[in-house]
Amino acid sequence: MEKITPITGTFLDEISHDIPHQNWGPVEWDQDFQAMKAIGIDTVILIRSGHKRQITYPSKVLIERQGCHRPVVDLVDLFLTLSEKHQMQFYFGTYDSGYYWHRGEFQKEIDLNKAAIEEVWEKYGSRPAFKGWYLTQEVSRRTKGIIDVYATMGRFCKDISGGELSVLISPWMDGMKTPIAASGEIYRQDGITPEEHEKEWDEVMAGIAGAVDIVAFQDGHVDFHELPTYLEINKKLADRHGLRCWTNSETFDRDMPIRFLPIKWEKLWLKLKAAAAVGVEKGITFEFSHFMSPNSAYQQAGHLYNRYREYLAVMEQD
Amino acid sequence: MEKITPITGTFLDEISHDIPHQNWGPVEWDQDFQAMKAIGIDTVILIRSGHKRQITYPSKVLIERQGCHRPVVDLVDLFLTLSEKHQMQFYFGTYDSGYYWHRGEFQKEIDLNKAAIEEVWEKYGSRPAFKGWYLTQEVSRRTKGIIDVYATMGRFCKDISGGELSVLISPWMDGMKTPIAASGEIYRQDGITPEEHEKEWDEVMAGIAGAVDIVAFQDGHVDFHELPTYLEINKKLADRHGLRCWTNSETFDRDMPIRFLPIKWEKLWLKLKAAAAVGVEKGITFEFSHFMSPNSAYQQAGHLYNRYREYLAVMEQD
Amino acid sequence: MEKITPITGTFLDEISHDIPHQNWGPVEWDQDFQAMKAIGIDTVILIRSGHKRQITYPSKVLIERQGCHRPVVDLVDLFLTLSEKHQMQFYFGTYDSGYYWHRGEFQKEIDLNKAAIEEVWEKYGSRPAFKGWYLTQEVSRRTKGIIDVYATMGRFCKDISGGELSVLISPWMDGMKTPIAASGEIYRQDGITPEEHEKEWDEVMAGIAGAVDIVAFQDGHVDFHELPTYLEINKKLADRHGLRCWTNSETFDRDMPIRFLPIKWEKLWLKLKAAAAVGVEKGITFEFSHFMSPNSAYQQAGHLYNRYREYLAVMEQD
Repeated sequence: MEKITPITGTFLDEISHDIPHQNWGPVEWDQDFQAMKAIGIDTVILIRSGHKRQITYPSKVLIERQGCHRPVVDLVDLFLTLSEKHQMQFYFGTYDSGYYWHRGEFQKEIDLNKAAIEEVWEKYGSRPAFKGWYLTQEVSRRTKGIIDVYATMGRFCKDISGGELSVLISPWMDGMKTPIAASGEIYRQDGITPEEHEKEWDEVMAGIAGAVDIVAFQDGHVDFHELPTYLEINKKLADRHGLRCWTNSETFDRDMPIRFLPIKWEKLWLKLKAAAAVGVEKGITFEFSHFMSPNSAYQQAGHLYNRYREYLAVMEQD
Repeated sequence: MEKITPITGTFLDEISHDIPHQNWGPVEWDQDFQAMKAIGIDTVILIRSGHKRQITYPSKVLIERQGCHRPVVDLVDLFLTLSEKHQMQFYFGTYDSGYYWHRGEFQKEIDLNKAAIEEVWEKYGSRPAFKGWYLTQEVSRRTKGIIDVYATMGRFCKDISGGELSVLISPWMDGMKTPIAASGEIYRQDGITPEEHEKEWDEVMAGIAGAVDIVAFQDGHVDFHELPTYLEINKKLADRHGLRCWTNSETFDRDMPIRFLPIKWEKLWLKLKAAAAVGVEKGITFEFSHFMSPNSAYQQAGHLYNRYREYLAVMEQD
Repeated sequence: MEKITPITGTFLDEISHDIPHQNWGPVEWDQDFQAMKAIGIDTVILIRSGHKRQITYPSKVLIERQGCHRPVVDLVDLFLTLSEKHQMQFYFGTYDSGYYWHRGEFQKEIDLNKAAIEEVWEKYGSRPAFKGWYLTQEVSRRTKGIIDVYATMGRFCKDISGGELSVLISPWMDGMKTPIAASGEIYRQDGITPEEHEKEWDEVMAGIAGAVDIVAFQDGHVDFHELPTYLEINKKLADRHGLRCWTNSETFDRDMPIRFLPIKWEKLWLKLKAAAAVGVEKGITFEFSHFMSPNSAYQQAGHLYNRYREYLAVMEQD
């Protein structure tokens, strides 16, 4: 039985950019944490605490400064409570203005986040499950300003939480499946090369080491036969710069015209095998609740859950 | 507990332009009317009796003149029967040629509809649940000819049914989320301003008052923080011109690449709060059976149903 | 009760181009074959044994020559086993490089397939359910090279299997609903005319008669009111050239922005009535398991199954 890197972490996709909401309440979320636990998930990562005017907790800072809508429920509190109940580590995802950093106003993005991080740490910092920070600003290339965003925000998170909590980022590889704005196409012709990827991320990692602890590249933007090469580069670079290397193994299918439904088990298996082959220690996924859960509105997700469990059971017997 | 305008009406999306069919028979429809009733829905609105060659009842007029396909089942009869069983008011949606009025041939659209309305009233006019007319030709702006279409058809409907039945329209606000033909984009840059909206609809309402009784604007095309302004304008204009002002609170999510799945409960809640705040008396939705029903093929809809019910229960205790 | 051509065959959509995977294992597939059997399906057609680097069985030829991924399960073996258990005929779909024949390198596509067909026949040729070949390269027009591909590959399949097995193709009619690359549009303006269709397919059928036994045109690319004309042409041409004429009655809905969910029962009914009217003997569908099955992740499919069964039951009583 070929080894795969097991998935022991998942994002929580609230607020979502692009995945329709399941409209779960506390009871449904509790059931889903239970289903996560049953396959060994010990880490949950709130992908973002807010996006534009939508937020996950009643943030005075974001309501006042950004005109955000007061949420109907405090999801940060809910997820911390469930993490505590199910013995999981909770990572808090930062706020994404959806605006400043896209226009090069990095300092505004940073300043807003600093204020929100202070507020969050004051409100929830004493909660036992609060174990890490996730820097939600996702990038694929060594773009202007991003090292500074990651390094400054990562450092700020670490400092405020006494140096005890881990800081995680999850960039992507700028491959053939990177979505193209305003396009119906699934694939593009001008993806990055492994050499470019290595060169740029060597530089980024050098700049963020110490401020960021873990890098978990999204594994869905390059073709399946290209993935081993990229994973090897990622692992090598992380080792070189003293970062931990996880894989963010996407459980939705990028090859289909419906954007997005659960991935084919065989594709996930190919990706997790490739991660295991280069010694990636931990897999996290975007994300369990829509794409891999027996509770998902997408029944394909429940079947993926079963296929994954069956494989893991046999692998562990070997 | 903040007040929301309750949803007490829904469209029935047969024939559908863009929402895949659920393939329900009489038994499933009966169950769904029951689920509607359980949350207080007392009004069902057939969104259109036909579109191009598809029709909901065996219309001699439309089969002969438009080459429509004879339907496999008489949905108008079915929906009237279920409305009677569940004590609901049924609104009949007019025929949409999908052709004439898009080409400026308004008189042809009107004449065809007059013949169909006569036929319908003869066939179904004695049915006790038949309580209103819905003018299916949807617009967002004061475009050429539309006042005449609304006024003539509304008047014709009222006259033929003895002045007893209400006439409803459901235009939209031409905002940032108005779909752009042939585009993969979700948002656009050149939505209408509140001032333009007010000016144009002041004129439309002046022209249709007396022929149309109720206006229920679709609430999904403007951003959530813009909605209160638009709702206030709509209410003010309706009051000025003696129309009743409902809100058509869409229960599908316009912000997602999948077009369309159920809306996030928090978004619906924001919209219904905004409607209550300006005194909108009644909410209807497009539409219950796909997007808010426990019977929907989209399980997110069932969860939305539960979230809505829970909120309503607490609100009513207050 | 108007007669319809019954659906007694279905494609098995593994590997899929565009339909998200259901992640079924052997147990779920067994259940689905049972559901097929219950409505009279006696023929299953593997739509393709491989596409690009994905394959359905551990093909030494394709792994070595094309760098294909070794699959996690041998689906050809599984489908043959289930076909035997449920007394069905299995058609094997050829390999689609997704490359050579799109670039005019027809001979490479043929040679690769010949090697794979030899391998397949050696591995599975003795299996009692192996009853036919499906040439997976789909076309709509008399394009350069395609007669040669069909004739050569069909002949090769027939020869290797001792002339006992049938060879099937499933082209489409190049109508208004033919997808346009990189377009969000559902319809186009420049579909083929019946006259062009007839002229081109007269020529194609003349060229492939003897090498191909059955032609089952996809019925979803022309408008519903145009279909009778096309079906009549297809039947006439097939009779003229000594081919059997089936219809591939698509059970997904081409008229919706979600690509794709199950078709509306009334639309399927219109298409199957049109097929019966010109004497088409057998209906197959693309495809049962996603779009017409009570086991589908799309619940609309289960309702379609029920509507179809009900209609068939009444029709058979007549």
